[in-house]
Amino acid sequence: MKKILLLHGPNLNLLGEREPGIYGRDTLAGINAEVIDKCRKNHMDCIAFQSNSEGEIIDHIHAAQKDCDAIILNAGAYTHYSIAIRDAIAAVRLPVVEVHLSNVHAREEFRHISVIGPVCAGVIAGFGKNSYLLAVDAVKELLL
Amino acid sequence: MKKILLLHGPNLNLLGEREPGIYGRDTLAGINAEVIDKCRKNHMDCIAFQSNSEGEIIDHIHAAQKDCDAIILNAGAYTHYSIAIRDAIAAVRLPVVEVHLSNVHAREEFRHISVIGPVCAGVIAGFGKNSYLLAVDAVKELLL
Amino acid sequence: MKKILLLHGPNLNLLGEREPGIYGRDTLAGINAEVIDKCRKNHMDCIAFQSNSEGEIIDHIHAAQKDCDAIILNAGAYTHYSIAIRDAIAAVRLPVVEVHLSNVHAREEFRHISVIGPVCAGVIAGFGKNSYLLAVDAVKELLL
Amino acid sequence: MKKILLLHGPNLNLLGEREPGIYGRDTLAGINAEVIDKCRKNHMDCIAFQSNSEGEIIDHIHAAQKDCDAIILNAGAYTHYSIAIRDAIAAVRLPVVEVHLSNVHAREEFRHISVIGPVCAGVIAGFGKNSYLLAVDAVKELLL
Amino acid sequence: MKKILLLHGPNLNLLGEREPGIYGRDTLAGINAEVIDKCRKNHMDCIAFQSNSEGEIIDHIHAAQKDCDAIILNAGAYTHYSIAIRDAIAAVRLPVVEVHLSNVHAREEFRHISVIGPVCAGVIAGFGKNSYLLAVDAVKELLL
Amino acid sequence: MKKILLLHGPNLNLLGEREPGIYGRDTLAGINAEVIDKCRKNHMDCIAFQSNSEGEIIDHIHAAQKDCDAIILNAGAYTHYSIAIRDAIAAVRLPVVEVHLSNVHAREEFRHISVIGPVCAGVIAGFGKNSYLLAVDAVKELLL
Amino acid sequence: MKKILLLHGPNLNLLGEREPGIYGRDTLAGINAEVIDKCRKNHMDCIAFQSNSEGEIIDHIHAAQKDCDAIILNAGAYTHYSIAIRDAIAAVRLPVVEVHLSNVHAREEFRHISVIGPVCAGVIAGFGKNSYLLAVDAVKELLL
Amino acid sequence: MKKILLLHGPNLNLLGEREPGIYGRDTLAGINAEVIDKCRKNHMDCIAFQSNSEGEIIDHIHAAQKDCDAIILNAGAYTHYSIAIRDAIAAVRLPVVEVHLSNVHAREEFRHISVIGPVCAGVIAGFGKNSYLLAVDAVKELLL
Amino acid sequence: MKKILLLHGPNLNLLGEREPGIYGRDTLAGINAEVIDKCRKNHMDCIAFQSNSEGEIIDHIHAAQKDCDAIILNAGAYTHYSIAIRDAIAAVRLPVVEVHLSNVHAREEFRHISVIGPVCAGVIAGFGKNSYLLAVDAVKELLL
Amino acid sequence: MKKILLLHGPNLNLLGEREPGIYGRDTLAGINAEVIDKCRKNHMDCIAFQSNSEGEIIDHIHAAQKDCDAIILNAGAYTHYSIAIRDAIAAVRLPVVEVHLSNVHAREEFRHISVIGPVCAGVIAGFGKNSYLLAVDAVKELLL
Amino acid sequence: MKKILLLHGPNLNLLGEREPGIYGRDTLAGINAEVIDKCRKNHMDCIAFQSNSEGEIIDHIHAAQKDCDAIILNAGAYTHYSIAIRDAIAAVRLPVVEVHLSNVHAREEFRHISVIGPVCAGVIAGFGKNSYLLAVDAVKELLL
Amino acid sequence: MKKILLLHGPNLNLLGEREPGIYGRDTLAGINAEVIDKCRKNHMDCIAFQSNSEGEIIDHIHAAQKDCDAIILNAGAYTHYSIAIRDAIAAVRLPVVEVHLSNVHAREEFRHISVIGPVCAGVIAGFGKNSYLLAVDAVKELLL
Repeated sequence: MKKILLLHGPNLNLLGEREPGIYGRDTLAGINAEVIDKCRKNHMDCIAFQSNSEGEIIDHIHAAQKDCDAIILNAGAYTHYSIAIRDAIAAVRLPVVEVHLSNVHAREEFRHISVIGPVCAGVIAGFGKNSYLLAVDAVKELLL
Repeated sequence: MKKILLLHGPNLNLLGEREPGIYGRDTLAGINAEVIDKCRKNHMDCIAFQSNSEGEIIDHIHAAQKDCDAIILNAGAYTHYSIAIRDAIAAVRLPVVEVHLSNVHAREEFRHISVIGPVCAGVIAGFGKNSYLLAVDAVKELLL
Repeated sequence: MKKILLLHGPNLNLLGEREPGIYGRDTLAGINAEVIDKCRKNHMDCIAFQSNSEGEIIDHIHAAQKDCDAIILNAGAYTHYSIAIRDAIAAVRLPVVEVHLSNVHAREEFRHISVIGPVCAGVIAGFGKNSYLLAVDAVKELLL
Repeated sequence: MKKILLLHGPNLNLLGEREPGIYGRDTLAGINAEVIDKCRKNHMDCIAFQSNSEGEIIDHIHAAQKDCDAIILNAGAYTHYSIAIRDAIAAVRLPVVEVHLSNVHAREEFRHISVIGPVCAGVIAGFGKNSYLLAVDAVKELLL
Repeated sequence: MKKILLLHGPNLNLLGEREPGIYGRDTLAGINAEVIDKCRKNHMDCIAFQSNSEGEIIDHIHAAQKDCDAIILNAGAYTHYSIAIRDAIAAVRLPVVEVHLSNVHAREEFRHISVIGPVCAGVIAGFGKNSYLLAVDAVKELLL
Repeated sequence: MKKILLLHGPNLNLLGEREPGIYGRDTLAGINAEVIDKCRKNHMDCIAFQSNSEGEIIDHIHAAQKDCDAIILNAGAYTHYSIAIRDAIAAVRLPVVEVHLSNVHAREEFRHISVIGPVCAGVIAGFGKNSYLLAVDAVKELLL
Repeated sequence: MKKILLLHGPNLNLLGEREPGIYGRDTLAGINAEVIDKCRKNHMDCIAFQSNSEGEIIDHIHAAQKDCDAIILNAGAYTHYSIAIRDAIAAVRLPVVEVHLSNVHAREEFRHISVIGPVCAGVIAGFGKNSYLLAVDAVKELLL
Repeated sequence: MKKILLLHGPNLNLLGEREPGIYGRDTLAGINAEVIDKCRKNHMDCIAFQSNSEGEIIDHIHAAQKDCDAIILNAGAYTHYSIAIRDAIAAVRLPVVEVHLSNVHAREEFRHISVIGPVCAGVIAGFGKNSYLLAVDAVKELLL
Repeated sequence: MKKILLLHGPNLNLLGEREPGIYGRDTLAGINAEVIDKCRKNHMDCIAFQSNSEGEIIDHIHAAQKDCDAIILNAGAYTHYSIAIRDAIAAVRLPVVEVHLSNVHAREEFRHISVIGPVCAGVIAGFGKNSYLLAVDAVKELLL
Repeated sequence: MKKILLLHGPNLNLLGEREPGIYGRDTLAGINAEVIDKCRKNHMDCIAFQSNSEGEIIDHIHAAQKDCDAIILNAGAYTHYSIAIRDAIAAVRLPVVEVHLSNVHAREEFRHISVIGPVCAGVIAGFGKNSYLLAVDAVKELLL
Repeated sequence: MKKILLLHGPNLNLLGEREPGIYGRDTLAGINAEVIDKCRKNHMDCIAFQSNSEGEIIDHIHAAQKDCDAIILNAGAYTHYSIAIRDAIAAVRLPVVEVHLSNVHAREEFRHISVIGPVCAGVIAGFGKNSYLLAVDAVKELLL
Repeated sequence: MKKILLLHGPNLNLLGEREPGIYGRDTLAGINAEVIDKCRKNHMDCIAFQSNSEGEIIDHIHAAQKDCDAIILNAGAYTHYSIAIRDAIAAVRLPVVEVHLSNVHAREEFRHISVIGPVCAGVIAGFGKNSYLLAVDAVKELLL
């Protein structure tokens, strides 16, 4: 059975409380539950992790190489400047799907730049929690 | 029954022949058939159109306002400079999902900029023909 | 009797429906009628044309050289990137008045740049349909 | 009866002598007389003022708030860098029409930028003294 | 009684030893004691925390939302690039006063940019340890 | 007894009327009175001056060198481009505290740049009239 | 027998009338005749086409893949911004020689950039109609 | 007898006191006396004027057109941003020699730009008060 | 006996597995052993540490000040944006040798910038594990 | 009989050995022989010279003014930064054809800029040794 | 007796023939004679040298350190990019006066930048051959 | 026996006299002797050459291809702009170690850019004459 790492970056622990106008009213626990459920229905295993720390996110990407087959990653604000996370993705040779709740291109200009984009398989952004659920489908195809 | 416009921009008529290393071996007809089929299974109607002309693409976006509920748009190279298509999207008040076959962020720097992004609902890029199929799911949710 | 070409670019066919907060509630047909009427009162002939296609706009600028004395041009979004339209204006040796409904300088930064500006006689922007009517007066003076 | 402030910025006192190839041969006194006359015919009152001093221009914009209904402003070179004049315009809540004798977009690149543009109602440029006369019409409409 | 989080970013633990020509000779413990004391005199509670880790700083900003009323934040070098801390501040809906010991505008150009500035209530910089003490007064007013 | 020059730049004479959403409802006279009062309580003398003219502001900075010990300066829009005021500050060898009512970093990008910042002692911004009152405390410390 | 597509972009239909100081006095028909004649002498077939429409130019590049061996392309103003034409050239796997009548590097700065250059075989610019005739020789060598 | 206007911009009234490490110990009165004396020896008349106000400097440039033959101008900080002074110089058709006490190219980067340079006859910078005396020689040659 | 801190930044724990085409086949343990061995032969003590966390790297740089004489630092991707690590180096007053396995100047443009470079003693890059061994020699000389 | 200077810049002496993937396998001697031969057949004289020294290239351009009628110049890397060679070309009043073996627009971005382009008659690039041979034809036409 | 090196850079050997509209009709020999003569009258010795080679100019600057007291340098086009000449000037500890015949600030934008300016004593530009003669006076003062 | 070319660029002949604060007190002859001696001890032959001329440096790089196995290159100021030297290095297929005496990243911003870096094997900078000696070790490893 394929195993997916669902990895959330900084401030995503506040989902549901933080700026609901931008990020919606779903909580991270709720999203995780839905993603894990959808994975299970698609015969995939999924573990979820959130951290505000760039170093811990890198640690989890490294660890995924041992026992995961793909990563669904919402790197939050680190998307825009963490070359260290980019290097971690490039190093592990796993397909990574970049996910954003909001349409980052409709927000501040510094959010239009993704330093991790060039080393990810693809990106899904702007559909709220549905961005994650679509990523499950995308990952399933990538692992065929 | 909801109706979707599947709109393809310049050079996408060559799909399957054009640079298969970047765009894959699926033909446009094949993709259209799969998208229409998936829409039908999801109780949505879908019509597909391709044009190399910026003006015709704008015409079709305008026309969609009358009889469509959403647009799945791969604007091809126009993505990166057609402010006229951007204005058309902004004008019609329909949800538009921006789609790309390849991961545009992993290609030339001028492909990292989407002038239409800020007026679309969201973006799905990098999953080949599957980008379109995921967009059907995204549209379905947006129209709930 | 002097003859004026009133030329409208992309998305202006939607006037009245499209983002009325920015562009006002006048329709293109209504504006055309008022401009033609004002021309007639000033003993000038006026024909109006709108196209979403860059190529067709160029074709009409070329054709104007044969039977028009001046052009009132709202190039819409093409204002900001169509060097081809700029070259067409430079080629035809007719006075061209650049017109905008909205005050482009109060909108997105990419709308502050006019690539056609340097080859036009002058610009009138920000007065809604009145921008066109003022352009009739401007043209009249230019043709004295 | 509506009252208009006609405000001229630096070097415009030299009109008629200064670089007639760019600015034409009309003197400032002549232009003022024509504008005042056209205002009167349109049942509006007009007072004219010119200063080379950024501070005095700001003072006059402030004063206009008390007894004027609109401003026709040719800020000259201050157009391109005086954020202080921009702030004055934003502060007074009067419609301001930005006017230029020459087509600033056909001149040096630093003249393409208007820092006051975003807080004005609109702009008329490139028609020589006629730019001012068109502005009278524009103001009249704005005050309806 | 209002409660203030006094939060220090990277390298501020070295205060008093580190480049005293720029940062002065006060130690962090000394500054904390003075701030806490001033808070107490103003009938406010204050807890202080320092970390070199971006993730821990974000954790503390999140935690403050539960039991603090305002934050005095010297984000050190993270001021200039941590969009993640910026997002944390925007998320928590507490007034944050940005503080710097040195006048960052008189130092290297990359220190002139504050990515957290736009989401803070205000900034106090350049007065050594007094920047913090002034921030206590500022916070007191903000919480009135 | 130490003497402070409280110097206000362009448009600040309109305080209370001008864009109260940004600048608050306090009038300049009210702020001056509070600052002078606070100075007196701190055994300092304070004289206040406002001008819309860059040259007059420079004149007052020069004059301060003779009979003042420090300057509290809100240079308004000149903050962002007046190298002449910057040079005046650098010339007079008095501590200058840069003050802003609003948080300039949360406004237009051109307001993020302070050309006078590098020659001031420090900056206090974003606390409305309280920015001035905090500056009195800052100055008092600087003059110890 | 090898077959060449001679493709002309926007405004080139005006050759001979348009700005003869820059583009010379040869008409497009005249140039086409000379190029076709030279091709024939070199035992190559040549068909010529001109369009002001970006979409039509792309259509012709696509069509060339079926029955042509090389393209001589003067893309006119589209040279500087049409990524869509660039993509068409990259897609068809035919050698394309970029041609310009004038020395584009001696004109406005925006004409120094060729977005199609990186996917063409080479460029010949600055020799008037002779640029086209030299391109025939260049193509002949490329097809050996 | 030829007449020279010696015109000094902002902060130059402080010469001798202001930052002597950069500007030297000569006072403005001393420099004026030497320049006037040297002019007299060269059979030229010279009047000197200093102002901190951009508007007054423009007024004096305008006035010079009536009764002066050349201008020696140290525009101080206005050198770097006053397009209004640039326009005044361009308007008056007198030769203007740009003078600086210090070598502006060896100072901050924003002092490397001279917006008045393109409309002056030449520049002499870096030789302290001698820059002015050399300018007298330069002017004498220009007026031959 | 002199003591060296050998400090490795993010992703370097993967050495030997990660992109061997760029970083070679040596493992971090192997490199550490060789460096420690070479230090011993040169009568220097060496301790090695790796972390993916910016904060932990700063902590170790701080701690080094107490019991180390120099640092050999491969900051990995943090090299290019961690102003916090730069400040830590500037704070501790120890010689730091910047080391890279690959020639960063031959890779992506964002890797050409080193924000820590200006506060290091020197840099050695491009020689694989030998970069570290050369750094031992460099440090030895710096500590003479 | 017309005389042509064939001038080669830095590193072109290595032709045939240097990076044959980019520059082809022809040697400089071979190319010179073919160009001279083609010139002779066209009743023109040709002398060839290569230098790695910017100064020598300038010397030869100067000398050409005395006894040559045109220059075919491959300035190699100097193309991209030698303003001195540009000035030499501008000074000698001979038609100069800029030649490149490779399509410089398909290589690194710094090779897209030609500082000599604006003062040359035209450019031929991308056809290997044939670029030179086409330049002979171009020169012949220029000298008619 | 003080000794001056008069050093001319690339293309200045062509003076009198090269673009007389910009550089005037004086020959280099003529200018050298006048400068040497003026030096002699001022009891200074002067030797003149011109080279088109960056390396030779550096050699002469080096050599000047042994037997010259100052350098008058017109580095021609090297002014704008030769960091090597800049380093040579910085190395020799002689006062260097930068000279230009034309007003470089009134020409192309790339001529507004002087990389040698920051290490020269001062600059004199725009007065034709008189720029050199004024430099003799400047040098004389510098050597007092 | 392997043979090394030790190549020094502009101004390095002045070592020991030139700005000893930056470059140290070692002379070039002294450095050459130490490098040659270290090579000999490592059973490598070394010849040293210095030139201020870009062309001569290129000539020596070319010549090295015939009889040298590696190059140690301090290109001095040419490091920052000589694309011609970069091309020479790319052409000769020898490993080149870029060396700098000073830490170029701690100096002016234009010295942070190395145009030759991308084609060198690696770089050693900041260790004074020891940079060269470390380069001998680096070369030895590269030639194993």
